[in-house]
Amino acid sequence: MVLVYVGAVFKNIEIAMAKATYIAIAAITIDGKIAKGPKHFSDWTSPEDKKFMRALLNKCDVVIVGNNTYKTAIKPLSKKNCIVLSRSENQTNQKNRIYVNPDKTDLRKFIGGRGYKKIAILGGAQTYTYCLEHSMMDELYLTIEPIVFGRGIDLFASKNYLYSKLQLISTKKLNNQGSLLLYYKAIDKT
Amino acid sequence: MVLVYVGAVFKNIEIAMAKATYIAIAAITIDGKIAKGPKHFSDWTSPEDKKFMRALLNKCDVVIVGNNTYKTAIKPLSKKNCIVLSRSENQTNQKNRIYVNPDKTDLRKFIGGRGYKKIAILGGAQTYTYCLEHSMMDELYLTIEPIVFGRGIDLFASKNYLYSKLQLISTKKLNNQGSLLLYYKAIDKT
Repeated sequence: MVLVYVGAVFKNIEIAMAKATYIAIAAITIDGKIAKGPKHFSDWTSPEDKKFMRALLNKCDVVIVGNNTYKTAIKPLSKKNCIVLSRSENQTNQKNRIYVNPDKTDLRKFIGGRGYKKIAILGGAQTYTYCLEHSMMDELYLTIEPIVFGRGIDLFASKNYLYSKLQLISTKKLNNQGSLLLYYKAIDKT
Repeated sequence: MVLVYVGAVFKNIEIAMAKATYIAIAAITIDGKIAKGPKHFSDWTSPEDKKFMRALLNKCDVVIVGNNTYKTAIKPLSKKNCIVLSRSENQTNQKNRIYVNPDKTDLRKFIGGRGYKKIAILGGAQTYTYCLEHSMMDELYLTIEPIVFGRGIDLFASKNYLYSKLQLISTKKLNNQGSLLLYYKAIDKT
């Protein structure tokens, strides 16, 4: 009995200490575009990718999303815990929607303080870039839709050249057209 | 004997009539970049991708390549038949290197006239874009290296938004890091 109890305590401590996992979810064209323009969200992605994204979001405690992306998907996101990144001061928080200015708040500390363990990063480009540059992208689920836009908004929009290496863990063909889900993990630099 | 001869004639006619196949070969980062800048070629791609590219180039009759990309790989390309796209007038043709201005020459007719059947398209962005926009991309071999640049040169640089659908035919993991070779075919619009 004592052993079982001690085991349970250790298990609880382990859960409480568990590191938050930041999981980016994105869909891109063959040429790496997440949208044609700022107001163009996901009308071009496959039903299979949307289904995958919804299921993954349901497993996450909170969603980090940029304000532009949030506005293009208010309805589905209104049911989730959302941290909406915005530099504008005139935003109204709601029960499950908190606006955070990433220039003024240590986002990682903010999330840690709230005890979230599984954090989804939903874009857009500025949000993906912020998270990548602040070591807040442990995993990346990237669906490549078999379409070319030719121009548009990139997955990342870094001011500086990066050279971030990831590790491809798995690939999955989602449908007959060839929507392809890639799963990457960040390479631990420690 | 007569039947054999007639058969041979038909076979020759068939070969002569066979459609040229345009095969684009590209390596991109996870975020869809082919290079950091105009003079940055393929020092960042995996040995496995380079090996694949060399083998595929050896099977092609001619290489279409933009002048900037050509300059970054003169040594390996000097042994191939090359059509180098350039808008500059002061270029010197050699036995196996012909400069073509795509604004002044019907590239498809030019290639047809020379009887080439397997044509490799090696980039850069302007050349890939020209070929895509002129229905000169029947196949695309795209290696995704598990790296993020954050910014750089896109695979395509179209002035207009496109919506070109392709069909994913196969995927192949090239190494342990997760360099991934994707093989797409154009969807026949006829």
